[in-house]
Amino acid sequence: MENFVYHHPVKIIFGRQALDQLNKELTALGRRVLLVYGQNSAVRSGLHGRITDLLNGSGIELIEFAGVRPNPLHSTVQQGILRAREAHCETIVAVGGGSVIDTAKAISAGVLVAHDVWQFFNGKKSVRQSLPLITIPTAAGSGSETNHGMVITHDEHGLKFGFAHRHLYPRVCLADPSLTCTVPTDQTIYGCVDALCHCLEPYLTTKAAGIEFQRRFLESTAQTLIEATRGCLENPGSFTLRSALLWSSMMAMSPISTAGLGRVYHSLHVLEHGLSALHEIPHGAGLAALLTSWLTCHLEQFRVPISRWGEKVFDLGGAEKPSATIDAVHGLLESLGVPLSLGDLGLTEQDLGAVASHAAAQLEVRRIPGLDEARALEILKRAL
Amino acid sequence: MENFVYHHPVKIIFGRQALDQLNKELTALGRRVLLVYGQNSAVRSGLHGRITDLLNGSGIELIEFAGVRPNPLHSTVQQGILRAREAHCETIVAVGGGSVIDTAKAISAGVLVAHDVWQFFNGKKSVRQSLPLITIPTAAGSGSETNHGMVITHDEHGLKFGFAHRHLYPRVCLADPSLTCTVPTDQTIYGCVDALCHCLEPYLTTKAAGIEFQRRFLESTAQTLIEATRGCLENPGSFTLRSALLWSSMMAMSPISTAGLGRVYHSLHVLEHGLSALHEIPHGAGLAALLTSWLTCHLEQFRVPISRWGEKVFDLGGAEKPSATIDAVHGLLESLGVPLSLGDLGLTEQDLGAVASHAAAQLEVRRIPGLDEARALEILKRAL
Repeated sequence: MENFVYHHPVKIIFGRQALDQLNKELTALGRRVLLVYGQNSAVRSGLHGRITDLLNGSGIELIEFAGVRPNPLHSTVQQGILRAREAHCETIVAVGGGSVIDTAKAISAGVLVAHDVWQFFNGKKSVRQSLPLITIPTAAGSGSETNHGMVITHDEHGLKFGFAHRHLYPRVCLADPSLTCTVPTDQTIYGCVDALCHCLEPYLTTKAAGIEFQRRFLESTAQTLIEATRGCLENPGSFTLRSALLWSSMMAMSPISTAGLGRVYHSLHVLEHGLSALHEIPHGAGLAALLTSWLTCHLEQFRVPISRWGEKVFDLGGAEKPSATIDAVHGLLESLGVPLSLGDLGLTEQDLGAVASHAAAQLEVRRIPGLDEARALEILKRAL
Repeated sequence: MENFVYHHPVKIIFGRQALDQLNKELTALGRRVLLVYGQNSAVRSGLHGRITDLLNGSGIELIEFAGVRPNPLHSTVQQGILRAREAHCETIVAVGGGSVIDTAKAISAGVLVAHDVWQFFNGKKSVRQSLPLITIPTAAGSGSETNHGMVITHDEHGLKFGFAHRHLYPRVCLADPSLTCTVPTDQTIYGCVDALCHCLEPYLTTKAAGIEFQRRFLESTAQTLIEATRGCLENPGSFTLRSALLWSSMMAMSPISTAGLGRVYHSLHVLEHGLSALHEIPHGAGLAALLTSWLTCHLEQFRVPISRWGEKVFDLGGAEKPSATIDAVHGLLESLGVPLSLGDLGLTEQDLGAVASHAAAQLEVRRIPGLDEARALEILKRAL
């Protein structure tokens, strides 16, 4: 294991009555609250009404900030920062999926600095403080509700960048799996693919020795993700299966999953960010379309861990060929009915140069080894 | 999964340079520090000197409190509380194994109340606050360095009771595995047995459904514990193996290991506390001597999870008989060279009644189902 600091301070209140703790948890953090949510579903599902009812008469003032869209935008974050400043918000509640929560995180740090919030993403500034954040996830997959990462698209520059900092951990996550029972099928699957890639990328890219515990943790998380997703597709309203999916996706992106692994990198994610920055593609769909190609292009480099992944996650007993693992991953994606190629997503060869060049821009900021613009293009071409 | 709150606020700084952070972490918590440690090893190993050197000139004042013994005593805690009060300590540093850290936890809560600290253990009072605690573990196994539990023996009453509370989480754990490289062989093994039982007890006693992630987590942790311990016995000075053992034993007793399992109980631990309360027996040795008997007496009740444990942890492919798992556990204990019966520990049938009656006293306070005095006696007799 490599030296590491494990500090995961978020308090996760998990289960059916989680939302009932909102009033108590908020009161400890501040009374003027920016309520960040998405486009329609929180209102339509009645969740928005439930939250306002819960806080009715509590003396807590909700300042509404609605309309966050998937692949959330820098311009939306800026509007949120203005709104929070005008209303002197002391704390933030985010109700939604990863896009809403990432937007809330960017607001929570951006509201306390004079510079453009994008400077966190382009590596020019670091976070020193943030407004306290409570998350109420309505979809499983991104893990953002309990981790310290965020991904934002700069609408003007056409860049989608990720950033993580310990000051971005939410204070409290109120995780009621029943809020995820109505997530549409495609989003359920994309959430699974996202979390699965978050297990696979550190698993393959670590160079640390003596990490049997972590390998098993990542394998176990991946197996649970796959089983729970398959279960949810058959039985979307199952509280038990939605619980397993929400919890395992949180674990996939919790700091425990990378503790002791040393430097790991997420070049598949970086590559996908280029796709969904430049095209209206759900993040999980982009990952799915790239995954087999990304693995194939890394086959020699990651021969040993790719083989082990197949043995442990897909029960490929005794199979020594990494290509059998890639076949199994492909078979899984096929069975889930996700886009299997960039062609399936409507891209053509002419689109690939811009995506590769986007990856190069992110690589420059985050210094991710093992991928450059030429290699990115190679992976993209193979994924067509 | 059952509803749960997952909140593990301790900051774990893990690796070779962990101790270097002591000054910085302490400065944030308080300048008058009670330094709690054991009998000789911290001084003999030079660790005590290293700590005083680190803090030299920092303005931090160390108030020494040495001499904590294994199976730590209530009277020692009381002395520590007096010492911390007289010196107006603001914070505590514990350097040692589970006994030292448990003593430090009891002092951290006891110093802030007017009543006898034993009232936490006998269920008459709860903890509302505590002095901040930094732990520096020198042995793997108890998990106390990063969890919220403590076990103390009341010398006058002859009772050994455990207690856990969220205010007992250490603030920071400085975990340098190289400090555990010189742990004697028997203590290395006993630490492994302790952590292993902490995996097995919740695994067998949970009644929650949809907990595949947790089952896999506990199986993975147990496998890593066994492998790392075997490795350390062959190569005691290996930093890599000591890291794996320290980290997996922390995980065995971290709140993640029981999240979502609902009510679980530790009747094997309760039984063992009677042994080491009344006899000078290391905790891990007592657990080892009882484990096979405890499993055998629960064979019908836990038939399914016992079989699965064998399949996953001991690779008993397709074995459906839970007795095969018990044989494998027995074989493991035999290979580790631990006491395999109460006779090996020097006990005779006359000693058993008092041990069973001790268990009954703890059961009454903690309301642990599945065990009463008669059943305790049955397990003890079978373990002779």
